[in-house]
Amino acid sequence: MSESIAWIAVDWGTSNLRGWTLNHAGNVLASRNSPKGMGKLTRGEFPAALAELLADIPLTDKTDVVVCGMAGARQGWLEAPYLEAPTDLSGLIKGAVHPESGSDRLTVSILPGVCQKHGGENVMRGEETQLLGLASTLPGYAGLVCMPGTHSKWALLDGTTIKHFTTAMTGEMFELLKTHSVLRHSLNGDLETSARDDGFAAGAADGLDRPQDLLGQLFRVRAASLVSGREPAWCFGYLSGLLIGTEIAANRDQIGGAPVPLIGSPALCDLYAQVLQMAGATGQPVDATEVVLAGLKAARNAA
Amino acid sequence: MSESIAWIAVDWGTSNLRGWTLNHAGNVLASRNSPKGMGKLTRGEFPAALAELLADIPLTDKTDVVVCGMAGARQGWLEAPYLEAPTDLSGLIKGAVHPESGSDRLTVSILPGVCQKHGGENVMRGEETQLLGLASTLPGYAGLVCMPGTHSKWALLDGTTIKHFTTAMTGEMFELLKTHSVLRHSLNGDLETSARDDGFAAGAADGLDRPQDLLGQLFRVRAASLVSGREPAWCFGYLSGLLIGTEIAANRDQIGGAPVPLIGSPALCDLYAQVLQMAGATGQPVDATEVVLAGLKAARNAA
Repeated sequence: MSESIAWIAVDWGTSNLRGWTLNHAGNVLASRNSPKGMGKLTRGEFPAALAELLADIPLTDKTDVVVCGMAGARQGWLEAPYLEAPTDLSGLIKGAVHPESGSDRLTVSILPGVCQKHGGENVMRGEETQLLGLASTLPGYAGLVCMPGTHSKWALLDGTTIKHFTTAMTGEMFELLKTHSVLRHSLNGDLETSARDDGFAAGAADGLDRPQDLLGQLFRVRAASLVSGREPAWCFGYLSGLLIGTEIAANRDQIGGAPVPLIGSPALCDLYAQVLQMAGATGQPVDATEVVLAGLKAARNAA
Repeated sequence: MSESIAWIAVDWGTSNLRGWTLNHAGNVLASRNSPKGMGKLTRGEFPAALAELLADIPLTDKTDVVVCGMAGARQGWLEAPYLEAPTDLSGLIKGAVHPESGSDRLTVSILPGVCQKHGGENVMRGEETQLLGLASTLPGYAGLVCMPGTHSKWALLDGTTIKHFTTAMTGEMFELLKTHSVLRHSLNGDLETSARDDGFAAGAADGLDRPQDLLGQLFRVRAASLVSGREPAWCFGYLSGLLIGTEIAANRDQIGGAPVPLIGSPALCDLYAQVLQMAGATGQPVDATEVVLAGLKAARNAA
């Protein structure tokens, strides 16, 4: 006989949907993935997408489903109004909204995101839950947390309180420049050579050194291939290093002596850790799935 | 009887082709425009494009055609190898190349561009001729020249010598972000309201204030519409101001007390002049067509 399911944790992002069933001790019993992220669904399609995700999960009793991420966006399943930073993330569950689940068996709570109105307007949805999870994994941590990605978040955390945060469009900028800009002509070829590491180091050094000159230094990707015959792999590495170096330099004066927790894909966190080291700081990669689960648990336990 | 044509000046850019016939005194007799820029032509199509541009020009004798711009690029009509900065632009004509014109009547010289190998790899094609023209219009000018555009050039000029230059991808970045990034969702609507000027001023102030944080401040375009209900015109102005402010801030410490000559479209030069003023400097818009013609003349006279 299978162990009984206490509740279900769901991370509903723009591109993907992930769910975990947990027992009363908070251990994961099973996990499910689906490509049905918020970006692919109309409002009315959310209940069916959730039902489909959980189709083979045997539910006997009425079960709580705690959801974080873009399902709570205005264009998502049901808008969960933002909490405003600074705010104690233990209060996430109090801000949750409850859409019709479309099933007698499921009671859905969608956690809110966090916005910032003063000291730089900003928004996040999903990262706040990872931050709550980090706070429960590293109790008492006070300092900057870096969440590299399409839109990197840098949050100043103090225990479970998010005090301030910023968003750097680093990952999206890399994709835009690589795909649509004049720089793409210099990135066409074999990208998997050791020149890529050299380019990355050179770009990161330039970004750390002159972050105020990103618009100017970007063009070096093109000029280096035209004037110095740099190969595509070098240019690719340079572009990536330059963007990450620039991002880290902008946050450098807020980084203290303690390692900066890095929440994101392992490959990306590795690159950020390299550049943090070049900047005389330290990065500490953290498992992103572990913290989002820890955050969903912490949110539910605060209910 | 029409006045006799001494020579023909041509500015052959990526998108457009412009030609002028001049008399012996250097006055323009007629001008012609065509959309047949380098980007639309294969190598073999250049002679016909030039013939077409000049189709209704009565040429009796063999006539010199002096060309600047992208016709001399590797992917142009015939590659004119770069001069390397620092260099005296009076030497442009000595670096010219001479493609088969396809006509007994036309002798074509394509002027070289300028590259930079030390102190930041860089390239220009076309702007060097404008700079030579500026030097002949403002003899003895020594200082920074700003050429706003898709790829803005900032050149340190000393008489006819270009000492150093940089390229900021400001215009291209604006187009990329407006067209392809997540920010486009905040730029959808009526852009012609007074909120656009307010947004421009706010963005320019932020860019001048924290140029090292461009990747972070860009996201404010999105957050301002989500959190503060900023209208599309404000966001559009903010994005434009932020990029120009950031570009100018990166060059600020090289700008002296003298007005910075601005060579570009009048609308864009106006915006740059506004932001230079916010930065405690002055911009001096210069007619771009006038300087390119002056540059082609100065190059020819140096032959």
